[in-house]
Amino acid sequence: MMNKYKLNVGIIGLGTVGSGVIKLLKKQRRNIKNRTGIELKVVAITARNRRKRRGVDISSFKWVDSPLEIARDPEVDVVVELIGDTDKTAAKVIREAISNGKHVVTANKSLLAKEGSFFEELAKEKGVFLRYEAAVAGGIPIIKVLQDSLIVNKISKLYGVINGTCNFILTKMESDGREYLDVFSEAKKLGYVESDPRLDIGGIDSAHKLALLSCLAFGTTLNFKSVKTEGIDHISIEDIQEADLIGYKIKLLATAEYSKNTLIQEVSPKLIRKGSPIAQVNGSTNIIAIEGEEIGTTVFSGPGAGMGPTASSVVSDLVAIASRKSKSTFLTGEKINGSNKYESTSKKSSFYLRFILKDKPGVIARLSGKLSSCGISISQMKQKPFAKQKATLIITTHKTLQENLEKALIDIKNLKICEQRPVCIEIQEFQKGSQVS
Amino acid sequence: MMNKYKLNVGIIGLGTVGSGVIKLLKKQRRNIKNRTGIELKVVAITARNRRKRRGVDISSFKWVDSPLEIARDPEVDVVVELIGDTDKTAAKVIREAISNGKHVVTANKSLLAKEGSFFEELAKEKGVFLRYEAAVAGGIPIIKVLQDSLIVNKISKLYGVINGTCNFILTKMESDGREYLDVFSEAKKLGYVESDPRLDIGGIDSAHKLALLSCLAFGTTLNFKSVKTEGIDHISIEDIQEADLIGYKIKLLATAEYSKNTLIQEVSPKLIRKGSPIAQVNGSTNIIAIEGEEIGTTVFSGPGAGMGPTASSVVSDLVAIASRKSKSTFLTGEKINGSNKYESTSKKSSFYLRFILKDKPGVIARLSGKLSSCGISISQMKQKPFAKQKATLIITTHKTLQENLEKALIDIKNLKICEQRPVCIEIQEFQKGSQVS
Repeated sequence: MMNKYKLNVGIIGLGTVGSGVIKLLKKQRRNIKNRTGIELKVVAITARNRRKRRGVDISSFKWVDSPLEIARDPEVDVVVELIGDTDKTAAKVIREAISNGKHVVTANKSLLAKEGSFFEELAKEKGVFLRYEAAVAGGIPIIKVLQDSLIVNKISKLYGVINGTCNFILTKMESDGREYLDVFSEAKKLGYVESDPRLDIGGIDSAHKLALLSCLAFGTTLNFKSVKTEGIDHISIEDIQEADLIGYKIKLLATAEYSKNTLIQEVSPKLIRKGSPIAQVNGSTNIIAIEGEEIGTTVFSGPGAGMGPTASSVVSDLVAIASRKSKSTFLTGEKINGSNKYESTSKKSSFYLRFILKDKPGVIARLSGKLSSCGISISQMKQKPFAKQKATLIITTHKTLQENLEKALIDIKNLKICEQRPVCIEIQEFQKGSQVS
Repeated sequence: MMNKYKLNVGIIGLGTVGSGVIKLLKKQRRNIKNRTGIELKVVAITARNRRKRRGVDISSFKWVDSPLEIARDPEVDVVVELIGDTDKTAAKVIREAISNGKHVVTANKSLLAKEGSFFEELAKEKGVFLRYEAAVAGGIPIIKVLQDSLIVNKISKLYGVINGTCNFILTKMESDGREYLDVFSEAKKLGYVESDPRLDIGGIDSAHKLALLSCLAFGTTLNFKSVKTEGIDHISIEDIQEADLIGYKIKLLATAEYSKNTLIQEVSPKLIRKGSPIAQVNGSTNIIAIEGEEIGTTVFSGPGAGMGPTASSVVSDLVAIASRKSKSTFLTGEKINGSNKYESTSKKSSFYLRFILKDKPGVIARLSGKLSSCGISISQMKQKPFAKQKATLIITTHKTLQENLEKALIDIKNLKICEQRPVCIEIQEFQKGSQVS
């Protein structure tokens, strides 16, 4: 079942996300083809301004002047609509594309929240796919998870932090002890705030996304208007500090709950206990938790915005369309046959060591001498009181090559001063600034 | 594109997962059909012991005596193999099923880790699907996320906690201050440990799962043998306490990294900084973090085992197969048209309130009187020093109906004692025992 499927793509809108899609395709197109058999070919592009600096060369692509031209282009299989949430052209383009039998991929959450049901009906009628992974939570594949994986569950509740701008502002107020308006201005300067700021800070963007998520999660009709929405502009630094004193952080939480045939959707600031994973999501990171009868609670977190993550979601939609059309098994691609082994030589880490030593004179000096002669320097050392003719020695090392440590442990073994095999555990530090640091 | 697709399912093995699949299908079959158009029909079942108590009625299904009979049954479209990791029959069954042109869904990670490439080749040759969402991380749809969503990324690193038994033991040692052997015996009594305990505590089960994940993440050849594997049986309560003193927890971490054409796979206990989400994953919960060039870091967590989550993954594989065969758009199902509104009446919550009060005699007494007459009892109250003829009053309430609070706030407004609109934020407590509590 080696699928060779070519999908001709027309891209409308070359802002951050659109340019990101072009970049990602340039970089990963061959890789995607090797692994899935799917060829994604950009056959036409358009944007408001052809000459804008985009950090990517677009001269090799066919440029057309009007978005509708792409929606009508017989060569185009799928229209990628990335015009932006506030432009009225988007609705026309999507309608025209679907009417012409083209699949549509869009990141336009505000349009989908309002007109999604209409577009869905139209797509069904025309037998085409409408996909929008990039519309919610950037790089977290939450739409596909709900559509493909969790659809077999009875989901009862869905909640999370799904607007990066508000979370950036609240996090920054808290970390810097600054007032709302001050941080809001900074966010605006950084380009984090939509041209209509009420979309972000008024909670409306979160409400758009929540409406899309909850109709997928619960199988209910899309209903953006029923989301009870409250923003963050009344939150003062004093509230954040008072919440802190009693063990909470303030987050703009989106919540949808379905029970007894009633859907309750709400976006509003909430006090969240500090220990909770949701309270710990900082800056523009998004987090979504889903509770279901069979599944229990699953939690998904990742970058909620940004060129790379959002473009990655758009391209994954393209691959999903192509693979559905081609009935791909995704087991068909070539495997990379690189070196596949465990190498200890190149990695430097700190280690935790525990030795049980015999009660003999000079054992600690001899042991630490061996560590030193293997180039291992000690960060902390603690000798516990002797008991039953044994001494416990706890050491943490500075960063060292693993092979040096392995050599030292062999040398120490040969000293015959240990009562049992030493315990040696690597201290794992994650990349700074990553969510798991 | 209304797809009506029927998939005939044969189930081999009716232990926890197999019985769970039957239960889930009984409960959700109609729901799945309504939402996706896909009908999943169990046409044959078998297990070692027909009469075992399973908590689910299996008398309505066609029982056959031999697993191979199901693998050869012309009526069966997809064979669900849930015999268990240690039984040699599984390999024969999967081979026979694929050879007979049947799709296969399995949770057998140890078999896949060793023979996965062979089965994959065979499935490719025969044009059938081989799916195994339930083999790794229970209810977290990590296999689909890697196959379908993250395939467009260049993933550089994958790591997490993927064996619930080890994590249960380490968490319990830490919380109860008990020794390894003591907690291990408890885990064994609770049925958490595989019949060959080395699979769990020796890190081999994690290694099986890691090998499966890394070949999907990096597109490399499946290579279980190259995973450097170390277990947890040498970890003493002393190590956990010493780690705690310097700010770390000990977790059995599975890590795969691909760079410079070299794959490094490792399973071993690591010291993880307490603040990290990975350190906070307790009991049988699994967590997996994925780092990619475009995507940044995304993190997935959820129940790593258990009847519901694992069965849910099996059934989602069945739906995935049917939808690929039927080219479903998943936009075809009926919508639930329940009530779709925000209701404040039925929910009880605690609230954080901040009032800016005018500097007049008795304002606090009048305000607290209104709260009390609306049935709202105060949990904590703090009055900040008067400044500029204003007093700030911070109140947290005990649990109360939201409508009571709304009424109280209107009454207080009418008192004309507030300088500005009070700030009112709900205190969100998550279900106890859930991952986000």
